[in-house]
Amino acid sequence: MSSGNFTLPGEAGYEKLTMELARRWGADVIRDSDGTRLSDEILNSGYTIYSTVCPVREHNEWIKAHPFARQQVFLSSRPAAATGDELVIQPMDGFFKEQFEINDTPDAMRFWQVYDRTEGLPLLSEDWRYNPKTACVVIRSKPWRQYSVSFLAWRVWEEISMYNHITNNWDKERLMQLNPYDPEALAYLQSWMQLWCGSHPRTGVVRFTSLFYNFAWIWGSDARNRNLFSDWASYDFTVSPAALDDFEREYGYPLCAEDFVRQGKYCAAHRLPGKKKLDWMDFIGRFVRRAAASLVDIVHRAGKLAYVFYDDSWIGMEPYNGHFEEFGFDGLIKCVFSGFEARLCAGAPVKTHEIRFHPYLFPVGLGGLPTFSPGGKPGRDAMIYWVNVRRALLRAKIERCGLGGYLNLTREFEDFNKAMDIILEQFRTIRELHDFGQPVKLGPRVAVLHAWGSLRTWTLSGHFHETERHILIHILESLSGLPFDVSFISFDDIDKSIPGDIDVIINAGMAGDAWSGGERWREPRIIENLTAWVHSGGAFIGAGEPSALDGGHTFLRAAHLLGVDIDDGERACHGNWAYETEPFPGLFPDCFELPSKENVCLIDGGTHVLAEVGGRPALTSKAFGEGRGVYLTGFRHGPGSARFLLNLILFASGRGLAPEGVSNNPDVECAVFPGHIVFINNSGEPRQASCRWNNREYAAELAAYGLIKEDL
Amino acid sequence: MSSGNFTLPGEAGYEKLTMELARRWGADVIRDSDGTRLSDEILNSGYTIYSTVCPVREHNEWIKAHPFARQQVFLSSRPAAATGDELVIQPMDGFFKEQFEINDTPDAMRFWQVYDRTEGLPLLSEDWRYNPKTACVVIRSKPWRQYSVSFLAWRVWEEISMYNHITNNWDKERLMQLNPYDPEALAYLQSWMQLWCGSHPRTGVVRFTSLFYNFAWIWGSDARNRNLFSDWASYDFTVSPAALDDFEREYGYPLCAEDFVRQGKYCAAHRLPGKKKLDWMDFIGRFVRRAAASLVDIVHRAGKLAYVFYDDSWIGMEPYNGHFEEFGFDGLIKCVFSGFEARLCAGAPVKTHEIRFHPYLFPVGLGGLPTFSPGGKPGRDAMIYWVNVRRALLRAKIERCGLGGYLNLTREFEDFNKAMDIILEQFRTIRELHDFGQPVKLGPRVAVLHAWGSLRTWTLSGHFHETERHILIHILESLSGLPFDVSFISFDDIDKSIPGDIDVIINAGMAGDAWSGGERWREPRIIENLTAWVHSGGAFIGAGEPSALDGGHTFLRAAHLLGVDIDDGERACHGNWAYETEPFPGLFPDCFELPSKENVCLIDGGTHVLAEVGGRPALTSKAFGEGRGVYLTGFRHGPGSARFLLNLILFASGRGLAPEGVSNNPDVECAVFPGHIVFINNSGEPRQASCRWNNREYAAELAAYGLIKEDL
Repeated sequence: MSSGNFTLPGEAGYEKLTMELARRWGADVIRDSDGTRLSDEILNSGYTIYSTVCPVREHNEWIKAHPFARQQVFLSSRPAAATGDELVIQPMDGFFKEQFEINDTPDAMRFWQVYDRTEGLPLLSEDWRYNPKTACVVIRSKPWRQYSVSFLAWRVWEEISMYNHITNNWDKERLMQLNPYDPEALAYLQSWMQLWCGSHPRTGVVRFTSLFYNFAWIWGSDARNRNLFSDWASYDFTVSPAALDDFEREYGYPLCAEDFVRQGKYCAAHRLPGKKKLDWMDFIGRFVRRAAASLVDIVHRAGKLAYVFYDDSWIGMEPYNGHFEEFGFDGLIKCVFSGFEARLCAGAPVKTHEIRFHPYLFPVGLGGLPTFSPGGKPGRDAMIYWVNVRRALLRAKIERCGLGGYLNLTREFEDFNKAMDIILEQFRTIRELHDFGQPVKLGPRVAVLHAWGSLRTWTLSGHFHETERHILIHILESLSGLPFDVSFISFDDIDKSIPGDIDVIINAGMAGDAWSGGERWREPRIIENLTAWVHSGGAFIGAGEPSALDGGHTFLRAAHLLGVDIDDGERACHGNWAYETEPFPGLFPDCFELPSKENVCLIDGGTHVLAEVGGRPALTSKAFGEGRGVYLTGFRHGPGSARFLLNLILFASGRGLAPEGVSNNPDVECAVFPGHIVFINNSGEPRQASCRWNNREYAAELAAYGLIKEDL
Repeated sequence: MSSGNFTLPGEAGYEKLTMELARRWGADVIRDSDGTRLSDEILNSGYTIYSTVCPVREHNEWIKAHPFARQQVFLSSRPAAATGDELVIQPMDGFFKEQFEINDTPDAMRFWQVYDRTEGLPLLSEDWRYNPKTACVVIRSKPWRQYSVSFLAWRVWEEISMYNHITNNWDKERLMQLNPYDPEALAYLQSWMQLWCGSHPRTGVVRFTSLFYNFAWIWGSDARNRNLFSDWASYDFTVSPAALDDFEREYGYPLCAEDFVRQGKYCAAHRLPGKKKLDWMDFIGRFVRRAAASLVDIVHRAGKLAYVFYDDSWIGMEPYNGHFEEFGFDGLIKCVFSGFEARLCAGAPVKTHEIRFHPYLFPVGLGGLPTFSPGGKPGRDAMIYWVNVRRALLRAKIERCGLGGYLNLTREFEDFNKAMDIILEQFRTIRELHDFGQPVKLGPRVAVLHAWGSLRTWTLSGHFHETERHILIHILESLSGLPFDVSFISFDDIDKSIPGDIDVIINAGMAGDAWSGGERWREPRIIENLTAWVHSGGAFIGAGEPSALDGGHTFLRAAHLLGVDIDDGERACHGNWAYETEPFPGLFPDCFELPSKENVCLIDGGTHVLAEVGGRPALTSKAFGEGRGVYLTGFRHGPGSARFLLNLILFASGRGLAPEGVSNNPDVECAVFPGHIVFINNSGEPRQASCRWNNREYAAELAAYGLIKEDL
């Protein structure tokens, strides 16, 4: 059995099991987890020890003594319609009372706002008052208009603690979270960190369960509507009067509640960021780096390494914002369901990249279904996630992997343990291949264009299941295992001209979202540059509602490149081009189909329909100058999707569909490393495949989910 | 056999057939048609004679001598992208050369515009020039921007003549059309009308094939894209430099090409009309009435009646604009596929309402399929259209009916003749019932709310098949045969308050269209009044994307009344309310289903989901004050739809679902007249039904498509 580069969660009380599994799986590290601890026997067993700390929780005593250092959030009350000239709104109505408490301190009240949502204007302060006794806002209303109250609330239950209590039936103390923006809190944290290092001599790696601010997760009071808002990339949980005041001093303009709550829509990462949001991210990001670096420094001075877990309270820690190295972390740990998450981790500028496999050793998975509890199939789940992730590992190096949770739960699930035997063997095989050198890439260099650009390299926001309705996450997931050079560019990056090292640009989203680009397409330079670039040979692939924006002569601003438009209702009286479908041989793997989209219309007689679904064009191609525009109605990651995307990128950029280095079986992918070729079978059935390389044919007979490495 | 109130098309050369069918079908009128003439034998046969005239065509000689009096249109060229600093556009490129010719007279060139479509701005006149020799516009361009040329074109082939030539293989002379806005042309027309009346002594009724300006119908040069734009209600074909100049003098501001071509989207009736369009309609409408009244006057002075056919060149003749009586017409003739068209005709303020049955006695129907030609089934078609129309005739009186086309074609289609035997018998039975008095209506008074209001009573624009994608036409068609009082109101009508005689308001459309209301929902008064009205007991039914408009805290501005919203992408991170479907007994007839709509979401725990489709709410209900908001995802007219709509209106307004006067079988409808009850079977199979009235039960056994009248 192979060994090394594997982090096993140990568990006090299960020392024998811990040692057994450490040996079985070749662990070199044993960790504690949120909810477990390591006994002296484990700590002294000779393994390197990772210790989990979450800087902002486990300080309930201190927080109780310093309630002003609790974390906060702007909330927007449910809008209510006035029936007369006075309207009473209970702002907390509908919010989870165990998560939030109104902050009605004078310092906070400065930031409260009452909005007339019918007209879209804030009320003057004399037109409403807050009654602290009843916790109600009394509004001088215009009859039949709708109003809502935007207010500051304390967050009184740390969200991950809350989630685990409720989902995994924890019954230990409910944790609060302190806000290190408060100087006293930060000083406390630093001294706590110092003490902690001193009292954990066996710890080799301090594993920060991320940092200070959780992603936005706003819960509701009604069990039928518990999740009000959840965005892995929102900064809603970073606010406090002190930070807002400092921001105003530094940036020269104030932020108000409405800048965060946006009519109750909040500022999800799927929407286009405006200047205010970007400024706030910049402001908070600098604070987070400064404060976190002071903790990392303490860890380093104690002779330990500092790794960070890139989930939960990660806000302010974008690995691709150009400042990640300022933290001084030695490693980045990312839990992974999917290939794109592995690429996200692998590309971050840090020494050690470690992935955390799903499922966690918890009774219930993140999706809410049983895993290590009756009805769960954790072995099957683990293998499915692994197969998702494995493709990406072929393309980019990940140094380490590991598990998290309650090790004792594995006792009842030998199917999981067997799956881990296979997974670890394959992980180490792939890891080693990267030591021989870079895997071979195919020619076309792909850029994904959206409003966030490189900041959101290999991600939208959160796990796959959180962003599933977005076409782009499906494309990223398929792309994560393809042998292409992939970059992520923003509209700012193409404002002057399209960078010279791009052959294919993909824009995939829904009208108005950050992924399609919305308002950014109103800038003539963007269209001009893209038009010039395609004309000179570039390939533009648009999926869903790419470049969609109202107000233009077409709804898709790149319609002239694609030869199709989306009818937003303006074309109800316009005729359609009749067409014959012209399938391109080999483009579609079996079992892959595009979705039907009702309002797609050809706007050009030169547009070729390569596939139709539901009697409407689903895939089109149009020559434009030396280049090409390709439109597809949508994209879902699944069987055949990655091969289709590979084919489409080759087709759009004018290459042949079956280049060397690509397997002849869509279920099987391969990667060519210096001296080696590796085949992976993504299917749960045995598969045969072959691949040409340097005019030689390599063949493989693969078991279900199998991996075969051959010498070249 | 019954007789009277029927207009038969005669045909010279088929005198025996004409007389035979006149007797068989009890005709009291014989007409000529576009393409046929009546011989002296027919003219002298003792029947009243309708003679068809189309005022603007059949004047080719005069038009050739007065080419400046031809009709015109603004066209917008295909946008083209500049590759350098000069771009050449051939404006006529893509347009049907047999329909249009460039008007490059100095008078017309004043109105030409060249637009930078990338930036959305018109070019200065020094930045482009037209070369009449090459018929090209040369543009000083910015590289990679798109430009289009908006220009005036002569229309050189009258569109109905063009259509019949091409569709029905006519080979007679191609007709042009004169523009009576030219004073010389109008004077010519008046003298022609005078002469015409003198030379047609046998004619009792001059049947105007509508008036001067055809609905917009812009054809393309490519057979794959022949129909570029077609809107039954657009004013595009009414323009001329003279009219535009007069407009500016009268209204104090000029119109330009862009006001008509709108980036090449043109001004379809499905879009919200702006002030400029409404002003232009007002301006042209007054001219059309003035000019047409002068012709009607000539007809009247010749001792004849003047009827008008409400299709084709009808622009400027809205029957519901409050000025229709100024024409002085004695009758209005409407060809009908559908119930809503019969209601449209029946409600117009004119003495005689006459419907023209489909199919016309032409080889090919309006939809392009064979009718009176091999493969056609005109008898089946006639019965299907009749069953559509018959429901509406139960609710509103139509005095006359008739046919049009080539009578000789009926010889090969006895199935059609037999169908007409039945249709005419049933028509006369229903017509007689109205002589006993008004049919009984159920309580709730329904108003359809859209941007056009009463101007577009019982219509969107054109026939059903032309507007089929719009939810509202399906609702109108179902509504046309229901026993409700129905009115059509605009946002102006509810700007002060909701009129007191309304119980149910229906708003049904797609975001941004005239039927949903688009920008009109930005006005707080509209929301306030609707909110107040529902709170005090009104029922608001929204279908599709009712009240949808961006920029608000909800995408549906009436979301607070409906309890649902449509997610435009802003709610990607918001949770959904869990719900249990609560079917309301009896609401859905068998075989009727609502469409699934992906982005519908509950925004209120008090919203009841009455039906779901595809795992999403499809029909919801929410109490609001004393009233109710009901949302449905869409609506298609078809089996069961009318009964569902009847049920829904009763449910929304708080009534029981099975009132007296409604049949117990959804396939069978009935109407109660003073002293009589009539049942109609809308199904092609025999049906039984019964109906309670005054606590008595009336029963009927109906043949396929049968009608049974019983005494009360």
